Amino acid sequence: MTRPRVVIAGAGFAGLTCARALKNAPVDVLLLDRNNYHLFTPLLYQVASAVLDPGEIARPVRQLIRPLHNADFLLANVTGVDFEQRQLLTDHRPLAYDYLVLASGSQSDYFGNASLVQHAFGLKNLDEGLAVRNRILMRFEEARWTDDRERRRTLLTFAVVGGGPTGVEMSGALAELTRLVLSKDYRDLDFDLVRVVLLEAAGWLLGTFAAPLREAARLSLEKKGVEVLLKAKVADVTESSILLADGHEIPASTVIWTAGVRASDVGSYLGQPLGRQARVQVLPTLQVDGHPEVFVIGDLAGPGPINSEGGPLPMLIPVAMQEGRHVAATIKDVLRGYGATNFLYKDPGIMATIGRNSAVAQLGPVRLTGFLGWLMWLFVHLINVISFRSRIVVLVNWAWDYLFYDRPIRLILRAADEKATRPK
Amino acid sequence: MTRPRVVIAGAGFAGLTCARALKNAPVDVLLLDRNNYHLFTPLLYQVASAVLDPGEIARPVRQLIRPLHNADFLLANVTGVDFEQRQLLTDHRPLAYDYLVLASGSQSDYFGNASLVQHAFGLKNLDEGLAVRNRILMRFEEARWTDDRERRRTLLTFAVVGGGPTGVEMSGALAELTRLVLSKDYRDLDFDLVRVVLLEAAGWLLGTFAAPLREAARLSLEKKGVEVLLKAKVADVTESSILLADGHEIPASTVIWTAGVRASDVGSYLGQPLGRQARVQVLPTLQVDGHPEVFVIGDLAGPGPINSEGGPLPMLIPVAMQEGRHVAATIKDVLRGYGATNFLYKDPGIMATIGRNSAVAQLGPVRLTGFLGWLMWLFVHLINVISFRSRIVVLVNWAWDYLFYDRPIRLILRAADEKATRPK
Repeated sequence: MTRPRVVIAGAGFAGLTCARALKNAPVDVLLLDRNNYHLFTPLLYQVASAVLDPGEIARPVRQLIRPLHNADFLLANVTGVDFEQRQLLTDHRPLAYDYLVLASGSQSDYFGNASLVQHAFGLKNLDEGLAVRNRILMRFEEARWTDDRERRRTLLTFAVVGGGPTGVEMSGALAELTRLVLSKDYRDLDFDLVRVVLLEAAGWLLGTFAAPLREAARLSLEKKGVEVLLKAKVADVTESSILLADGHEIPASTVIWTAGVRASDVGSYLGQPLGRQARVQVLPTLQVDGHPEVFVIGDLAGPGPINSEGGPLPMLIPVAMQEGRHVAATIKDVLRGYGATNFLYKDPGIMATIGRNSAVAQLGPVRLTGFLGWLMWLFVHLINVISFRSRIVVLVNWAWDYLFYDRPIRLILRAADEKATRPK
Repeated sequence: MTRPRVVIAGAGFAGLTCARALKNAPVDVLLLDRNNYHLFTPLLYQVASAVLDPGEIARPVRQLIRPLHNADFLLANVTGVDFEQRQLLTDHRPLAYDYLVLASGSQSDYFGNASLVQHAFGLKNLDEGLAVRNRILMRFEEARWTDDRERRRTLLTFAVVGGGPTGVEMSGALAELTRLVLSKDYRDLDFDLVRVVLLEAAGWLLGTFAAPLREAARLSLEKKGVEVLLKAKVADVTESSILLADGHEIPASTVIWTAGVRASDVGSYLGQPLGRQARVQVLPTLQVDGHPEVFVIGDLAGPGPINSEGGPLPMLIPVAMQEGRHVAATIKDVLRGYGATNFLYKDPGIMATIGRNSAVAQLGPVRLTGFLGWLMWLFVHLINVISFRSRIVVLVNWAWDYLFYDRPIRLILRAADEKATRPK
């Protein structure tokens, strides 16, 4: 007798957690992703700021699912779903499913602004993280070739757009990279010309945090040399400047965009209603209305009335992981003849780090800032880095960076140009 | 009074060693390279076979020259030399020199075979190493999507062309990657379909080694599962096969080319006579004839009568480093009013590794094979990895690989697509 087949599209925190939670279920699990690795996204900004190498924050999916004897992996791009035939469509061939879990995550949203698409860097995947690292280092090399002060200032101005956790972490790490590390590499450069600017449209940073923590984060960033510009809405970006909605112009030749995120394009292939951020509207059980065998989880899952206040849940790893576990439990329940239950989110708290030895953390009633917050951040992230080996290597790199103000990874790697990608 | 300026083109083993040897000389040193890093090339095949990450075998040049207070670095491509004006021409602007040291190294030589240029991967720089890694892993993923046995066999046949140290090391590491590591990731694949083929045009491997070591290497590779084909000359390569000169065809969709190396294109910009492998003919002092202030060293330096037998010196790191030191000493001598002296090479021996726990080493009268050779290889390479931090990280990764038959780095990273590369 063949066992029911659960196809999971996406090997991020939502999909991988779901696959793991199905370990002992009487099903065959097939996990798909367009990359062959699972990415530890909270540390992506550390690849972008040259602290860590890609191998330290990414793990091959096949290795992660080895302990799951009912799970397999295929590398593929999802191109649609045939709900009638119960097939997931891919760029290779359709895959039949009995249960389908869509967990394709999210991507940068430039809100249709073509100048952002052309000139700004996203910071959502590993390739983007490497591209940002290359760009930053390349700008310093280019600055060494020019004697024009204004041109140098433009080359050495790095703008991060978006004052959420990613923007705060990236700008903090970037300020430290330039002031603590690169200042030793470029002894002849006038570091007064180097600017790290954080632009946020709202009147505060870290909108999801309590007001005192927002202010602590802003002060901590400014202390590190980040220029924080609030109520600064980006209207247009060129190769060498940022134009704000109020008419101000900032000369800058590197723009990192963290101000908009929307769900993966997979959502738009489903013919289902999409909510805010293009997320797929789901039932409180995380099922697709009318297709109880199809689930949507993680950043892709939209603002069904699934949290206690009835609003949408944030795009956060704890949400993704809890949803993955919930859907695995639901599939097991359904196989035993029970019905699906509503998902309820248990908030473990949020945190953001601001470079070395400073962070803000909001864990229920507990609020930490500064060094204590940073110790908490270090502890949570280090125990969560995906393998024991990575933990050792990451620890060595962090200790090295911390003790010697030195980032060994600052290499400009050119695109590894693939030869003809697939033989006929 | 301004000090004489020594411009060194190339931050490989030759150029970097020369810059270091000029540390206390009364000159200003300007080091150029098209990459911002120095590459520890002996371990490049370990990046290609997913043991090490790029950050573990490459170091930023700026960091390496920090202890040299008379040295600076610029990122540039060399486009020519104006001997009359004493200027090195670059893609940015000309740079004046009093002494010029050309150390641009070597590149893959496909001998004008367009099919090799199109389909084969070189293994001379870090970008190529990453491209090979991506290709190997991608082929395994593609093989999972097909049920056609012959097609699978073609996808899973990896051909390494060239039986020198690079080909031997790469094919050995590749056999171990597939048989020890990937066999655990792809439990459903029939590993009888996986072939690693080493093709060599001569009747033996490792032509520069003594006959017993050549034979030991061949036996060791075959024991690891590499099919060694001798007297096999590649005539043509397509997307899915290799055609040999004798008419035989081998279905294979990945070809790694280590059978030809020639000097960097910089040599051809000089208007100087080129020798075998397009190397620049130099005087026994390593000076360019008629331009005593210009030196050529390392793989770029050609077959002047500069070794004891009068033949060309091999393209090896010890040659490059000794030449770098010799030229630094010559410049210091000339500044003190002495003449240039002839370069004499002191051969420290050669070695090649064949996967885990086997290597061949030929150090004067001492010849080691098997595990003893491997311990020697491990020792020499580990003490030579470029920094203390890298040594720790590399050791962790090697120990992990050795103990658990596991390569944590096997990620398929797509090209980090640069945005517009340089603002106007």
